[in-house]
Amino acid sequence: MTQAVRHDSMRARNLGVVLAEVRRSGPVTRAALAEITGLTKTTVSKLVADLLEAGMVAETGAASRGERGRPGTALALSGERVAALGLEVNVDYLSACVVDLTLSVRLRRTQAVDNRAASPVETLDNVRRLAREAVDEARSLGLVIAGSTLAVPGPVDDGLVHSAPNLGWRDVRVGDLLDDLLAPPAPPVRGGPSPQDPAATAPPPLLTVDNEANLAALGELWFGSGRRDFLHVSGEIGVGAGLVVDGALFRGAHGLAGELGHVIVSPDGPPCRCGGRGCLEQYAGQEALLRAAGAGTVEELVGRLRGGDIAALAACERAGHALGLALTSAVHLFDPGTIVLGGVFAPLFPWISGPVRETTAARLTAIRDAVPELAVSRLGADAATLGAAGQVIHRIVADPVAHLAAGGAPAPR
Amino acid sequence: MTQAVRHDSMRARNLGVVLAEVRRSGPVTRAALAEITGLTKTTVSKLVADLLEAGMVAETGAASRGERGRPGTALALSGERVAALGLEVNVDYLSACVVDLTLSVRLRRTQAVDNRAASPVETLDNVRRLAREAVDEARSLGLVIAGSTLAVPGPVDDGLVHSAPNLGWRDVRVGDLLDDLLAPPAPPVRGGPSPQDPAATAPPPLLTVDNEANLAALGELWFGSGRRDFLHVSGEIGVGAGLVVDGALFRGAHGLAGELGHVIVSPDGPPCRCGGRGCLEQYAGQEALLRAAGAGTVEELVGRLRGGDIAALAACERAGHALGLALTSAVHLFDPGTIVLGGVFAPLFPWISGPVRETTAARLTAIRDAVPELAVSRLGADAATLGAAGQVIHRIVADPVAHLAAGGAPAPR
Repeated sequence: MTQAVRHDSMRARNLGVVLAEVRRSGPVTRAALAEITGLTKTTVSKLVADLLEAGMVAETGAASRGERGRPGTALALSGERVAALGLEVNVDYLSACVVDLTLSVRLRRTQAVDNRAASPVETLDNVRRLAREAVDEARSLGLVIAGSTLAVPGPVDDGLVHSAPNLGWRDVRVGDLLDDLLAPPAPPVRGGPSPQDPAATAPPPLLTVDNEANLAALGELWFGSGRRDFLHVSGEIGVGAGLVVDGALFRGAHGLAGELGHVIVSPDGPPCRCGGRGCLEQYAGQEALLRAAGAGTVEELVGRLRGGDIAALAACERAGHALGLALTSAVHLFDPGTIVLGGVFAPLFPWISGPVRETTAARLTAIRDAVPELAVSRLGADAATLGAAGQVIHRIVADPVAHLAAGGAPAPR
Repeated sequence: MTQAVRHDSMRARNLGVVLAEVRRSGPVTRAALAEITGLTKTTVSKLVADLLEAGMVAETGAASRGERGRPGTALALSGERVAALGLEVNVDYLSACVVDLTLSVRLRRTQAVDNRAASPVETLDNVRRLAREAVDEARSLGLVIAGSTLAVPGPVDDGLVHSAPNLGWRDVRVGDLLDDLLAPPAPPVRGGPSPQDPAATAPPPLLTVDNEANLAALGELWFGSGRRDFLHVSGEIGVGAGLVVDGALFRGAHGLAGELGHVIVSPDGPPCRCGGRGCLEQYAGQEALLRAAGAGTVEELVGRLRGGDIAALAACERAGHALGLALTSAVHLFDPGTIVLGGVFAPLFPWISGPVRETTAARLTAIRDAVPELAVSRLGADAATLGAAGQVIHRIVADPVAHLAAGGAPAPR
């Protein structure tokens, strides 16, 4: 290892240590950062200068209380420049949000559209249009989008969506189709980038693609109730789940864990698009639920439930019982801390939670000391888009050097 | 922090680093250990002297190949002194094994006994007797038992077995009932231990209690095929499972994960001891299987299967189909790398694996690129006892100072 490489990797590690400490303890002075991290004051000052320059931290003027010695200028994460774009393609809507480095949500956009009627290319063109509007609006707020994650309703492997049966997608290379999404404007011609320029030879991925249910669970973790051990259930046309254990998402061996919608409720039940029979989705997925209730939309269903409509109430009773059966199996396997119902199950919670609780209690109480608490998501259908943006922010904070090497987030011109 | 405490904790960390490196790279010289760990040769020599004294490493005489400089005496883990006792209480047997620091199995004992007919105190008396025989035999081999883990067929929390319905146990404090199991012989009377003696004021737990299915999965990890991503299924009177992801056991929020036996196969199926209905255990647990086949023991069942007995074959077909349904739900939730069938499913594998594969393939192939491979455990019913002993060894290697503080493992008198 050459001295220069060793120095670079040490600077990378130390920048990450300082930024993480600013996030954890800020507002905090340079002197306190030196004491906490064990780095010299000179080193801390240099690293802080880089982070200030990149717009990742800002001077607040106020030192944290209880600190010894003369008061210094305190530092905190800055929400003024670096931001992330969260995107979601779901069966019947597209959505986008912009989140800054302090995890404040700066804007949200949702567009109702039936993506089953469109080809993947058409749908991704619509995503691109929505994303560009969001990027432009973010720029008008002084923000620079440092990266984006797109949530899709199906398993994802390195930008490839193997199968999203509810969208009719099979082996769609989303990463390639959207690779120009966040491309910077073409630089002035000077013979092109030099091959020695590390940012040119190894550009970091600007766009990542991930499963909707995983991102919704991360949205609940970072923007929700503050719980760190829970199973988040995303009720959409499909039903997905994301398990968070001690603040970390459980992904399984191939990143395909949490497919609650295909847990078997009844082995000889109705056939499912997955090739199986009697999957939860056939009882409690949005389409099955609306069909059973004779309603066209979730809003219409909620209206009917409020009015005491018998068919609507019976449909929720049946869906809640099926969800309770699948969750019984999930609790036996996952042993979650809490169960959080999100997506369409959030607005339906007042009607669906009773049957879920009854079914799980009847089957879990005798063998477990405590049946996991059942809670409603405050984020509802926004969870995945928020989790998508939050994932980018968490990556930047964990490895600020990769972000800086990619050109950082220069002050908007 | 005082200088002495800082020094002690640094020595503890460094002892662990050196021991782990000997395990990973041994046989390895002191000079190579210094180079790999970044510690000075003097420090390494002192730490190695402590580990030699404790019988945890031994000089092999042969340096590892390809090493530069003059050849030194190489060091490797020693299997000659420190050992662990693995114990298991299951419904119809007790078992014990002794494993040395190199994870070699030094002895095994199994005793068939119907523990449902006995009280917890009687059963634990039998465990104590079996354990003492194993400890005595280990001593005759020059081994000193440094700790023990007991596997029980039910969820465990800090030595308390909440509920092992197949044993008829409810809230049994196994830890307390067996706390004298590995107590050292009473010391010669000299006014008793001084309260300043850290080993006297904070004795480490000599006996831990853990769930049988969790320990069986760890047994497969450490003594099995070398896989690091798998779901291990323990077929006993109950059916448990342990998920290993990247070499680590998944335990859930309360350590109760992996209760595959209570995953719902059919919601209106036969009532189960857990309070539910149609749980996997009612179709594929050892009792259900033997009852359906009209056999008294697993050995008898295997004999009939070999002879082509129709009832026996039908019973395995039905159990395998039910196991396939529960595993379909488990694959959707856990996304395991491989599925390893152990316990009684190991001897029944030739007859049960076909229906399991058919059922999972029919329901998983359309939505997943690959259905997890189905493999047979080579350990069978020994997995939990081996995992129990292996857990003690892994704790000692991870934190040798705790072991040394507890008096280490003096050369047998």
